[in-house]
Amino acid sequence: MTYREFHRRVLSLCVRFRDEGVSKGAGVALIHHNCHVVLEAYFATAALGAVFVPINTLYSAREIGAVLADCDPRLLIAARSFLERSRSALGALSTPGDPPRLLSSETLLPPPGVPAYPATDACAAPHSMPHSGESLHPLPLEGGGDDPVQLYYTSGTTGAPKGVILTHNNVATHALAAIAELGLSEKDVWLHAAPLFHLADAWATWAITWVGGRHVVLPRFETSAAFDTIAREGVTITNLVPTMLTRLVHAPEADAGKLQSMRLILSGGAPMALELLKRIEALFPCPYVQTYGLTETSPYLTLSLPKQSIERLPAETQQAYRAKTGRPMLGVELRVIDANGRDVPRDGSSVGEVVVRGPTVTPGYFKQPEATAAAFRDGFFHTGDLAHVEPEGYLTIVDRIKDVINTGGEQVYSTEVENALYAHPAVEEAAVIAVPDDEWGEAVKAIVVLCSAAEAHEAELIDFCSNRLGSFKVPSSIELRNHLPRTGSGKIDKKALRTPFWQGHRKGVH
Amino acid sequence: MTYREFHRRVLSLCVRFRDEGVSKGAGVALIHHNCHVVLEAYFATAALGAVFVPINTLYSAREIGAVLADCDPRLLIAARSFLERSRSALGALSTPGDPPRLLSSETLLPPPGVPAYPATDACAAPHSMPHSGESLHPLPLEGGGDDPVQLYYTSGTTGAPKGVILTHNNVATHALAAIAELGLSEKDVWLHAAPLFHLADAWATWAITWVGGRHVVLPRFETSAAFDTIAREGVTITNLVPTMLTRLVHAPEADAGKLQSMRLILSGGAPMALELLKRIEALFPCPYVQTYGLTETSPYLTLSLPKQSIERLPAETQQAYRAKTGRPMLGVELRVIDANGRDVPRDGSSVGEVVVRGPTVTPGYFKQPEATAAAFRDGFFHTGDLAHVEPEGYLTIVDRIKDVINTGGEQVYSTEVENALYAHPAVEEAAVIAVPDDEWGEAVKAIVVLCSAAEAHEAELIDFCSNRLGSFKVPSSIELRNHLPRTGSGKIDKKALRTPFWQGHRKGVH
Repeated sequence: MTYREFHRRVLSLCVRFRDEGVSKGAGVALIHHNCHVVLEAYFATAALGAVFVPINTLYSAREIGAVLADCDPRLLIAARSFLERSRSALGALSTPGDPPRLLSSETLLPPPGVPAYPATDACAAPHSMPHSGESLHPLPLEGGGDDPVQLYYTSGTTGAPKGVILTHNNVATHALAAIAELGLSEKDVWLHAAPLFHLADAWATWAITWVGGRHVVLPRFETSAAFDTIAREGVTITNLVPTMLTRLVHAPEADAGKLQSMRLILSGGAPMALELLKRIEALFPCPYVQTYGLTETSPYLTLSLPKQSIERLPAETQQAYRAKTGRPMLGVELRVIDANGRDVPRDGSSVGEVVVRGPTVTPGYFKQPEATAAAFRDGFFHTGDLAHVEPEGYLTIVDRIKDVINTGGEQVYSTEVENALYAHPAVEEAAVIAVPDDEWGEAVKAIVVLCSAAEAHEAELIDFCSNRLGSFKVPSSIELRNHLPRTGSGKIDKKALRTPFWQGHRKGVH
Repeated sequence: MTYREFHRRVLSLCVRFRDEGVSKGAGVALIHHNCHVVLEAYFATAALGAVFVPINTLYSAREIGAVLADCDPRLLIAARSFLERSRSALGALSTPGDPPRLLSSETLLPPPGVPAYPATDACAAPHSMPHSGESLHPLPLEGGGDDPVQLYYTSGTTGAPKGVILTHNNVATHALAAIAELGLSEKDVWLHAAPLFHLADAWATWAITWVGGRHVVLPRFETSAAFDTIAREGVTITNLVPTMLTRLVHAPEADAGKLQSMRLILSGGAPMALELLKRIEALFPCPYVQTYGLTETSPYLTLSLPKQSIERLPAETQQAYRAKTGRPMLGVELRVIDANGRDVPRDGSSVGEVVVRGPTVTPGYFKQPEATAAAFRDGFFHTGDLAHVEPEGYLTIVDRIKDVINTGGEQVYSTEVENALYAHPAVEEAAVIAVPDDEWGEAVKAIVVLCSAAEAHEAELIDFCSNRLGSFKVPSSIELRNHLPRTGSGKIDKKALRTPFWQGHRKGVH
């Protein structure tokens, strides 16, 4: 599809959305696998000044209903496979006023009783040569600046969904900063492999279009499809969630020969163990860039791209820097502060909370003034993440505040223990959590997934950790499982892991 | 000076400005040669939410007074050499209320009776190692978004000064887009050689600081100082106005050996003759980038950076593309439209007016709603510039609308005639204007400056043009002069050239 055709399709969609009563400020929700339809909906809603609400495809009908009840959109667009869940979410809605109207994304053969998308050729002029000089009607520009443009619901740790508002300025500034940081250009081919309802991938919708690069869309992630698509389409850059990278690295069909077009591989969402980074860089013929960010920050806050001072270091030290959380992205003002609000020393060990301000930071949570007020202090958004800072300004996230384990008065950062486990060749994934302990208050517990062909026992893994960690950090128990629960964005869901252990205990789950 | 020290100096300045009553929205004017003081004033005013008004150093006391009367700033900061002119401008002010307070930029030995700048060590902690972890107090952030941050007065073609408002978003988006387009990084060393009161250079204040590059400041432009400074400081990039480039290329001390650190040389403000481009690229060991922009657009609208499709062309064709006005910069939506508002065909010959919209476009002229309304139609800012567009999307500006010559019903674009003259080896500069003509309404006249050692006569130059141009485009008269009048931004002042010829004529000067 050329950008000329994409432009026409977005225009047709604007006309259709208007016909459905979508005006400035109205909501348009969507539940859809990765598809050009999602890219088009991002652009059409932004052009109309509407607010796009991409819904996690793993949500149940009840969770979809909670999102719809919270933001009351005018439309709900669904791919065929989500129609049933969408219908039951809509059926259970008890909000006053008109419920959202359900729209199928299918053009030619919509399911009975569900209105379909516009066929492009019904609205647009016949295809013509791109250099013919024919005018394209400009897109409408009914929103902009500090108007909301998207609402992303986070899984949240309490039951109620929490909608993060992002403005036109938020996402546009992020896109421009990412273009500058990553050197994006029309030569780039981006693989949408991570879900487009999540910002880890969705930001590229704007940035890649802006520079005239090419979008390649993978409807759902499978390792063999990923290798084949990268090779066939000449993909140059993508952002995978860590679990996808883990699967690629361990896939039997892993084939570096299919990755020759790649120039950068990005990931984030969790600290990267140096062992895993080495495996990634052994497979991919390009540098790895660690990213760190939040939905609330559009998302990137830091990138592990090398500063000039790093480029002078030995190759191995440089690789260690690429495994760090990185240094602040353009447009992000970032501090790591202690409990008194003072910057921690840049000594690579003093830990504080990451707080940020700048044009990519959300104005707040939708209809949740208290949650918004709690997140901001002195104009800085408080991330809830703990980090230390190297003299060179590189951050290393050590933990979420609520994942820190307090055992007998000692603070244990779960990621440090996980990194020790990742150094063991049999470990594919590891999650370290606090479990109740009568003597120490909390004890360190690890949940581990082994590589498919590997074997290892609890005692062996505990021994392995004892050689690498101070005694109070060594897990007192290790449990082997076949898989770990995940949030919608692909992060390991530590709350879900903790909950069963804490039932009936006074302290409860943080 | 390290950025740590710069930060402290800007903080001290914020404190001093506050003591002088500068609060959000207040004006701070400055008349100063290029100096770190100007960079600091840009940052301190932005941090306080104040509006910075940099004044053209060529302005007379009367012109300075007109600017002060129009925007009524709280402060006027002057370098020693501008104190006398500043005092007489202030003395003649007849606006109600307190006049602006005059402040000398000198710290140690201010002239008698004029308050001086703060000495940094009076306000800041003693210098410490950059990696000591010592906290820097963050700058205030009292303005932002769509708040005005600078007011640039354009020479204007009518008597009254016209202040172009730029907002935080305008200049920040431009800086970020320029970082992305030009690949700016901490490795860059920018030479402030063009005046810092004009955006052709001033935008780099933000962009170079943002990436942590190095600023090198040339108090006033001289060819030998420019060569020596570039060599000594390892300058990598700068934007010179065309007249500076012309002087460098023709300087007897021109020395390519002193330019080895340069990676990009930018210029703009006037179309570039291919002959001059070839001379520039023969002297500089780096590509030339033609820029086009306006104060109203922060400033760049187009850059002649190569698209992928251009990079496949032969070297000579690529060079010709670098002499074109370029393709739109990131963040700029640009159209070239005919009198009916329709895009002209992209055929490299159909001419229309350049109109633009986007986040770098001014909200309008200060206190001039009528001029603002006249400049915008359908949300697009009308530049008053005429251009045609190549199939690849590259613009070539052919003229200002008001510089087009109408001779016997034929339109002659002055730049086409100038380019023909530039091909003559004896021509250093050429300006082509309309003069009154009894028979044809207007006639084509050229004013030419010859290279220092060269000789050429009117008849020879007219002959030279006849071999290159259609007969109605050939100048009917050519006048040799020693220099051409210029506007504050270094452009040839065609209005000043035309005025004497049109005195007493009905049509008047456009």
